[in-house]
Amino acid sequence: MRMLINVPETIVADALRGMAAAHPDLTVDVENRVIVRRDAPVSGKVGLVSGGGSGHEPLHGGFVGRGMLTAACPGEVFTSPVPDQMVRAAAAVDSGAGVLFVVKNYTGDVLNFDMAAELAEEEDIRIAKVVVNDDVAVTDSLYTAGRRGTGATLFVEKLAGAAAEEGEPLERVAEIAKRVNEHSRSFGVALSACTTPAKGSPTFDLPPGQLELGVGIHGEPGRERRAMMTSREIADYAVDAILDDRRPTGPVLVLVNGMGATPLLELYGFNAEVQRVLAQRGVVVARTLVGNYVTSLDMAGCSVTLCQIDEELLRLWDAPVQTAALRWGC
Amino acid sequence: MRMLINVPETIVADALRGMAAAHPDLTVDVENRVIVRRDAPVSGKVGLVSGGGSGHEPLHGGFVGRGMLTAACPGEVFTSPVPDQMVRAAAAVDSGAGVLFVVKNYTGDVLNFDMAAELAEEEDIRIAKVVVNDDVAVTDSLYTAGRRGTGATLFVEKLAGAAAEEGEPLERVAEIAKRVNEHSRSFGVALSACTTPAKGSPTFDLPPGQLELGVGIHGEPGRERRAMMTSREIADYAVDAILDDRRPTGPVLVLVNGMGATPLLELYGFNAEVQRVLAQRGVVVARTLVGNYVTSLDMAGCSVTLCQIDEELLRLWDAPVQTAALRWGC
Repeated sequence: MRMLINVPETIVADALRGMAAAHPDLTVDVENRVIVRRDAPVSGKVGLVSGGGSGHEPLHGGFVGRGMLTAACPGEVFTSPVPDQMVRAAAAVDSGAGVLFVVKNYTGDVLNFDMAAELAEEEDIRIAKVVVNDDVAVTDSLYTAGRRGTGATLFVEKLAGAAAEEGEPLERVAEIAKRVNEHSRSFGVALSACTTPAKGSPTFDLPPGQLELGVGIHGEPGRERRAMMTSREIADYAVDAILDDRRPTGPVLVLVNGMGATPLLELYGFNAEVQRVLAQRGVVVARTLVGNYVTSLDMAGCSVTLCQIDEELLRLWDAPVQTAALRWGC
Repeated sequence: MRMLINVPETIVADALRGMAAAHPDLTVDVENRVIVRRDAPVSGKVGLVSGGGSGHEPLHGGFVGRGMLTAACPGEVFTSPVPDQMVRAAAAVDSGAGVLFVVKNYTGDVLNFDMAAELAEEEDIRIAKVVVNDDVAVTDSLYTAGRRGTGATLFVEKLAGAAAEEGEPLERVAEIAKRVNEHSRSFGVALSACTTPAKGSPTFDLPPGQLELGVGIHGEPGRERRAMMTSREIADYAVDAILDDRRPTGPVLVLVNGMGATPLLELYGFNAEVQRVLAQRGVVVARTLVGNYVTSLDMAGCSVTLCQIDEELLRLWDAPVQTAALRWGC
């Protein structure tokens, strides 16, 4: 085990203490595991709350701030947070305008956010919910009924977050979040497995020289395992898997995402191939984001997410955002 | 080899094509390997040019933009760029106000930037130079006479870049860059070696369960090798190594930097320990930055950089910056 940790039991609390020290514009409740934008609740603004297992950083805590999430609830590594965290977060961010829960489609997350919604509504907090399920690789998987939620979560949180910042009401913010999810598709590839702190060994067995096509962000199995492919071949495979599922009829946002251990140098090179195949397939790219945003601890690999946009969504993408991991325009 | 590449020979050109596609506010000359801020030369503004071997991304190309570098020259992986790149970059950014070369202290880089300075001056471009040498781990190392240049490069580029953006003359910008370097110290730790594309195997041999204390950003040997330590122990060791070399007499900027493959979750946890030991030693922290900024391909590990600031340097740190990897305030 080559981890920079004290003991596995304190890894999430340790990280939250470190976030609190680095980001004075966040309120970090280490004991109850809730990260909240410091100026919340913002008068008249819909709150956006997300959360999920830890190990995917900067998702979700790194996306809390102006123009994106209002709060995030980190669970243990690869384990859903509990309803109590979500209710606390909702109470902390609700200005009376209601709260949108952004939920990645994993069985534990969906159940816990559902329970939290009931509890929050008992406290007179209006709740809407979007379930993100963008991964085209497989339907039904380890931890998931239906499609997994992966890279599109960033698009949902950014675009719905921008709408909330502009003062849109809960119904509109939820509608935008659902539209973004419906227009988004992802495909991921693992070049190595990841190692969870508790287990201390790789979560799955991927022999050197092989890759897992269609991997999930917890190392869930994908479509097939093949001998190592070039960046060009992986881009062809991933983009075509997405386009076979949904072919955009307008311009797209592109996320070229690293799983954690793949160097940025390689991710940019991979982006060149993604752009090439998109151009060859006649897909027009409006904006591109390259980096480690929705990760799987120390997994090597990448994912591609496309989100078809319209004029409103493009404007919301370009709108100011000020979070630990994503910031522009302010 | 578990790399997301086509062939090792095209890795830098591929990455530059991918950067060009993702960042329309940069002009990327793929053939000549120069990344320039699109609106350069900026009238009356001193140009800042840096560069070095690739494999440390986002350093340097990710730091090109308003308020930081005006241009960057990437060499092959872990290999100095050539003088021709640097002269091209200087010519592209010089508005008549001169150009500051920011050079990490490695033998090849120093020689090549010196030669480039002579050539640029023959073309009537005024050149000043700062050599960054912040790493306290060892003096004289593989590739280096004297101390290695590591994490302080980010501080030099940010603070001198902000001064240039404010219209300070070349002498002042160079003075600030040198002051930042003199007030900065770093210490790095490897939990695994990195693998260069050309070699395809780890650059050095670090048995599982051991770490290299004082490692360089190319995997150069450090002070000693030990059995795995906790995050707490590593923070104590690294911070004390820095404070033994130079004890700040005022508040500091802190960079908790990942070497590439260490998850952000672990880096934040490590930051909590760094902040703890700094508080115990009576060092006041003004600002903290946590993330993968000065990397070594897929090396697991981290480094700590402290930079003692004064009122001017703190103001320059908070000044707007708009680059691919670092942006705030605009």
